[in-house]
Formats: sequence, structure tokens, C-alpha cells
Amino acid sequence: MVVGEFVTHKQVIVIGGGPGGYHAAIRAAQLGLEVLLVEKEKIGGVCLNEGCIPSKLFAHAARQIRKMSGLDELGIRLGGSIDFDLSLLQQRKEQVIERLSQGVIALLEKYSVEVVQGKASFISAERIGVERGEAFDLYESEHVIISTGSGYTYPAEMQPDHQLIFDANSIYQVEELPKHLLVYGSDYLSLEVASTFSAFGTDVTIIMDEGKTAFPYDSAINRELFRQLKKAKIKCVKQAEVHGVTASSEGVKVDLEVKGEFKSVQGSHLYVAAEPSPNIEELQIQTAGIDQLENGLIATNEAMETSVNGIYAIGDVTSYQSLAVTAIRQGKVAAENCAGKSSVVDTSIIPHVIHFLQPVATTGLSEEMAKELGYEIKTGQFSMRGSGYAEILNEKNGFVKTVSEQESGRLLGFHAVGEDAIGLINQGVLALEMVAREEDLTSIFYPHPSLYEAWTESIEDIDSLAIHKG
Amino acid sequence: MVVGEFVTHKQVIVIGGGPGGYHAAIRAAQLGLEVLLVEKEKIGGVCLNEGCIPSKLFAHAARQIRKMSGLDELGIRLGGSIDFDLSLLQQRKEQVIERLSQGVIALLEKYSVEVVQGKASFISAERIGVERGEAFDLYESEHVIISTGSGYTYPAEMQPDHQLIFDANSIYQVEELPKHLLVYGSDYLSLEVASTFSAFGTDVTIIMDEGKTAFPYDSAINRELFRQLKKAKIKCVKQAEVHGVTASSEGVKVDLEVKGEFKSVQGSHLYVAAEPSPNIEELQIQTAGIDQLENGLIATNEAMETSVNGIYAIGDVTSYQSLAVTAIRQGKVAAENCAGKSSVVDTSIIPHVIHFLQPVATTGLSEEMAKELGYEIKTGQFSMRGSGYAEILNEKNGFVKTVSEQESGRLLGFHAVGEDAIGLINQGVLALEMVAREEDLTSIFYPHPSLYEAWTESIEDIDSLAIHKG
Repeated sequence: MVVGEFVTHKQVIVIGGGPGGYHAAIRAAQLGLEVLLVEKEKIGGVCLNEGCIPSKLFAHAARQIRKMSGLDELGIRLGGSIDFDLSLLQQRKEQVIERLSQGVIALLEKYSVEVVQGKASFISAERIGVERGEAFDLYESEHVIISTGSGYTYPAEMQPDHQLIFDANSIYQVEELPKHLLVYGSDYLSLEVASTFSAFGTDVTIIMDEGKTAFPYDSAINRELFRQLKKAKIKCVKQAEVHGVTASSEGVKVDLEVKGEFKSVQGSHLYVAAEPSPNIEELQIQTAGIDQLENGLIATNEAMETSVNGIYAIGDVTSYQSLAVTAIRQGKVAAENCAGKSSVVDTSIIPHVIHFLQPVATTGLSEEMAKELGYEIKTGQFSMRGSGYAEILNEKNGFVKTVSEQESGRLLGFHAVGEDAIGLINQGVLALEMVAREEDLTSIFYPHPSLYEAWTESIEDIDSLAIHKG
Repeated sequence: MVVGEFVTHKQVIVIGGGPGGYHAAIRAAQLGLEVLLVEKEKIGGVCLNEGCIPSKLFAHAARQIRKMSGLDELGIRLGGSIDFDLSLLQQRKEQVIERLSQGVIALLEKYSVEVVQGKASFISAERIGVERGEAFDLYESEHVIISTGSGYTYPAEMQPDHQLIFDANSIYQVEELPKHLLVYGSDYLSLEVASTFSAFGTDVTIIMDEGKTAFPYDSAINRELFRQLKKAKIKCVKQAEVHGVTASSEGVKVDLEVKGEFKSVQGSHLYVAAEPSPNIEELQIQTAGIDQLENGLIATNEAMETSVNGIYAIGDVTSYQSLAVTAIRQGKVAAENCAGKSSVVDTSIIPHVIHFLQPVATTGLSEEMAKELGYEIKTGQFSMRGSGYAEILNEKNGFVKTVSEQESGRLLGFHAVGEDAIGLINQGVLALEMVAREEDLTSIFYPHPSLYEAWTESIEDIDSLAIHKG
């Protein structure tokens, strides 16, 4: 290895080019700083190359397949059969990834961010080494933003081989459509995998992890999720403890204990939900004296600064929720602080969405959470059966639900299931952000007819004043 | 005619069962009042039976047809040809109208609203007569809500025969697909007709009415509308004055003068944009002493009360914009005031949407309007070419634009074109309602990836800080 003779100076070094990292790099450059971005693998990180983008493209295709059955009544007559060809979708995926990556690379160039492919580690609090094959370059910088993201930790008995046993990233690289996919997990990623492959024609069985009996959502949403799974003929094994997994030429067999009874489920492939495992070790952050939390994550304040002045950490290496949306905001905030602004992150209002059979989206407090936190609450709910626009779309299996504070009428939580739920939830996000009260959302004008009118009806329902509730 | 011997007493009489009227009737009943609803024709009015609902169903079908070309790259392979059968869509339309009408009728029953089919008119300020065929019944009431809506006034030379020459309602009842539809008009209804029938395979030529050269939107939206029309091969004749229309077995010929030159356009059918013409005459409101504005519309205050105590007017008979969304809100407000609450209508923030080739939606001030009103403004704009989710959907021809006040950063206007523009605009509606400032919409968390992230980028663009703007 050749260690560089001299030290290059930068104003900001960003380590990791995922969504958090590249947003940080661009924002810092926009604010006039000289920025180096070090990425070990691919610009865009897991989100762009393996996670969010591929999974949402696949979910989009799944949704289009489901919508085919509604075309006939709109007068759209198809002369022949409808076939699904996974290889075409994989080609499209490569195209989307390539275009988005090239887009990000062009933006980094536009802002004169220097991009280096290599493995970064701390030499000291001010000095970073970057290993690039045989070379090892030294950099010095006033500010460092750590955004190395995370890999996965799997349950001991379920190590993915990415041929028969997949994780959230490799499942979207599958080349042949699984005949029968076992999905071990109950988080949104697992639900998306189940929903998407079911639409493609795969038989799907969900095995709820760690003996769970419910998904982590408001009770009304939970009931709806189970109803949807049943309707889509996706089997669901609750309260299962996995004892072992056997992969063979026959497929994958999972041995389970369900309420004291031993049984096994056989599938052609297995998907395994995993815990994010932060990419910290290689960084040698102890050299820089950066404090870690007990669980190994990097401690930061709301400005995303670590215990070391000038060193920031964002995204999956921090204790915030492992979501691209969080990393993006954190990245901008860290960059703004590097540029002398005082910016902070408040993640109290985040939308959680599932690109599911029928989309699901939620923000703020569930009814149960609000009660647990000691709020006196009121709830309202409105079924899309009462929506004229849902009738037009023939998408009546959905509802919205709102949670508000008894005395003040302040809105605390928004929940939506069904067509356009992921669009609908943004009203909730903004309403929570603006500390809106019930009357703010009942006096509002939504396009007519549109699904958004459901929010008004849900809030009117709190006082039994929803117009279209039968 | 048999005039009733006695007078029936009601607490509220609603005249007209369109969206405004039935919302008013139900809200009044919800608040404990005894309500009579008089409807001359069909419950749901023009909106449900001929206008909003049919047009949005047709626009939905048009949109699905346009999306067919994107299926292949998602791996969805169609074995045969795609045909459009208008009669199937007409059947579906009848089904949707029937279901929604039955739904409203069931709601009126649920709330014990008495529904009478007949023609109402004022006998005095307190007394209403209802003509039902041979019978003429008398009613007395503390409160009357007038919601008789409007018909149309057409340009003198273009009277619809509803066979070759259509208006905004009859066009959606057409039984055979027009081969070449001339669309005379430049309002949103005309644009929707042009867009929808173009998707069905009809050749469409727009003749901009009254010599116009632009559509009534923000300049950025206007440019986009023309671009879309061109791309969809919809011809557009600007600055045309119509001199005459001839309908014959050959179709419809429109004689025009364009910049001093005379020419004619030939089509198979003609659509004519019309001015709403309020249904007031039959009511004999002068008997009740209700004041009218110079243009004949009924004068009201913000509580929707007319010059006569206890008599309210809502919807198209008032001077507010002729939109279902306005009538609905006014109906609730009038009903609430009948029940002793003090409710007012503020229509300063209304979304305007076009279910167009690519949907268009706008709320608040356009750049031009804001300047005219004397605001010092800033604008931001973001193209969907920079959106990862638009790449997934392959819907990159769109943008959002925001207008804000220079000094305060208060948001004044939101404009969106492209996929899901009609969903996106609701963020603008709520932001304006809550008097949001730029920072409220840049610190917000939108699902990633989603089109909503474009709002953040548009506002960041004001200070040249949009991340994905190349």
C-alpha cells in the first residue's frame, strides 16, 4: 500500500454516498463549502441501488397488475391474455437505477463535490484516510459527516444465501419468480415483499416473527391488514417461533413451534426480515474519540453533531429510525451546521407507509399510543365506501382515521388505508407540523370529487357529523 | 291543480338536492332540525348525474388508457390488442350514478329528511309552495335554504342539440364516439373534454373562445398546457372569433375569423363551453323580498344568509364561484346557521383542478396575480425529471411551482402539473389555510421516494437550494 506523501485539505468530508450522504454533500457545496464525498461501493447507497427504489418500482408494477381487472368496466378491452415477465421488470429496474445514479453523479459534479471511491477511516479527529486499492490518501477537514448506513443482522438460523433465502435487498434481484415464498417478518418491508410477489403470481405465506400476533400499527389498520391478506389468499402464521431452516433442492423448509405445537412450512424460497446493523467498525471512530451509545450507534445531538466538535453522523449509524427520509433531512441539517447555520432535526412527525395490497400510511399517534401516553382522545373514522371518488375508481376498500385531543381538538394522529393512502397521509404530516386543530381540516376545500374529502368526513365523524357515513 | 288545505310546518326547507342542497339538508338534520328537501329532478343534481361524477369517471378511464403504454416495461405483457368500448363505460357510468344516488337517498332517510319531488316557489318570506304534478302543497318554515343551482347560457350561434352539438353535461352521454370533436372553450371543463375524448381515440380541435390566446392559469402552467396539447396532437386555434356554426349530416362546420382572416373548421361534433345561468326565476324570490345582485344572482353575507332573515342561498345561485366544492361548504354553513351556530364561509383558498392529459392543479395566487396584487414575491419551481419516484412511475413530464412573499416567506400560491397533481395540491390548500411559511414545508418529512418531495425542492429552489435540480 502506498501512503500519500501529503494531506489534502477539504472543508467537509462526507463518508458514505447513500441518500443521507449525497444530500449532505450537495447541501454543503450549495452553501459554498469544498466537499469530498467518499463512497466504498455505489453512489446512492442501499436505498437507490437495492432498497427503496427497486422495492417501490416492484410495488408499482404489482399495483398495475392488480388494476388490470378493473379495466374492462371502463370500456378498456384487452384482446388477449396478460402475462408477467420478471426479466422485463428487472431490465427496467436496472434502467431506473442507472438513470437515478447518473443523475446524482451529475449533481455532485455540478456542485464540484469531489467523489472518491474508497474505504474511509479516521486517523485522528481531524484526519481521514481513504484506502483505494493500493493507494491510501490522507485528508484533513474542519467537518466530517459520517453516513455509512447499515447492513443487516439476521436471526442465527436464517442466514440468506441470496439464492433460496433472501433479505430485503436481494429479494428484488431474484431472477426467477419464486413459486411459493415464505416471508419471515412483520415490518413494512416484509409486508411489501408479500404484497408485491403475491401480485406477480407467487404463493405467499407470512410467518410473523418472534411470536407476534399483530403488525405494529393502529388497531384499525391491523384489522384491515389481516382482512387484505385473507382476501389476497396470503396465508399468515401468527405466534410462530422458528426452530430451524433447511434449504435444499426441494426449496426451503421452516420448522416452527406455534402455541406449543411443532410443525413445518415448506416453500420454494424464504425471505428474512433483518435488523439494521450499522456500518461503523471500519471507520475506527474510537481513534477520533467519538462517543457511541450502548448499542454501538453513534451518539449525536439534534444538530447531528457527535461528541467531537465538527464531526457529524447521520442516517442508520445514529439512533434515529432507519429510514431514508430521516437520513436525508439529517444530511441537510448536518451540512447546514457545517456552513455555520444552526439547523436541527425534529423527527417527531414522520410518515410511515406500506406499498401494500392496498397502500397503508400513518403518521403521528395511533389510538393506542395516544392513550398510553396519557392523552384524553377522540377518534373519527371514514370508510371509502362513502366516497364518490372511490366509487369512480372502484376502490372502496379503504378508510381514514384521525386521533385528536379531547379538550383542545388538536390533531394527534392520521391513518389511511386504501387507494392513494400514501398521498393522503401528507395532509396528516403537514397538519401535525402546523399543530392543526379539527376545525382547520373541516373548513378546508378539497377538490370534489376526490379521496381527500375523506379527511374532512373523518374529523366530522368525531362529532357524528360525517355526511356520507351510512 | 289542487291547492292543499293545510300548511305543513318544517324547521328547514332546502330547495334543490344537488351537492350543496343535500349536504345542507343532512347537516341540518344532524343538528336536530326537521328538514324538508324539495328536488325538481334528480337527487344529486347536475354534479352527480351529469357533471362532476360522469366527467371524472370518463377522465379516469382516459387516464387508464394512457397508462397502458407503460405496462410493457413493468413486465406486464398483453397478448392482444387494446380496444375501447364506449358503451361499457356508459354502463359503468349509469352504475356509478345509481349507486351514489341511492347512497345519498339512504343518507337522507337515515337522518329523516323528508324528500319531495316537485317545483318549489316562494308564496311569502315564510311560506313555500311545492307543485307536484296536479298537487300544490304549502309549507311553512323558520329557515329556507335555496340551492337550485344553474343551467347554462350558450353563445347565440351555438345552441346544443345534444346530438351533434353538446354542452358540458350532454357530452358525457354521447353514445357513439365522435370522430372529430371541435371543442369551443378554454375553461377546465373544455380542457377535460378535449383530454378525455382524445384518449378515447377522437380527433380533437380546441377553438379558444372569445379570441383568447391563453388559459386562465399561471404562466408556467399555461406553457405546459400548450406543450401537452401539442404532444397529444390536439390542435388549438387561438384568437378565433366564431361567426357561425352549421350542423348537417356531414357533421359540424364552425366559421371563424382568426386575426382578420376568415376560415372554417370542420368536425363531426362540437362541444360548447357555456356560462352558468342560475335557476332563480321559478322561485319567485321577489315575493319573499330577497335582494338580487345586478347580475341577477342572490345576494348573501358570509353566513350565506340573504337579505331576508332566515332565508339562505348557496351554490350557483350566489355570487361565489360555480363549483361543487363551494356549494358543499356553503350548504353545511347555512345549515349550521339554521341550527343557531355561527358559521361562515371563506372561499379565499380553493383548489382548481383539471383532470387533464397530465393533471393540473393550482391553489392560491399565480405569479402574475400576486404581482398584480402588489406583493413582492419569490418563486420556486421543481421539475419531476429530478424526482426519483417520477422516474419509477415513468411520469417525468410535470413540475410544481410555489409563490411566496419576499420578506415574510409566507406561501401564497401552489401550482402542480403532472402525475398526482390533484393529490399534490392539497398540501398547498392546507399550507395556505394554516398560513405556512417556507420553512414549514422544507423541514417536513415526506415519504421517500414520493412525488410529494417535489414541494420541498420547489421551496428550496427559491434560494437555489433544491437538491435534485440539474
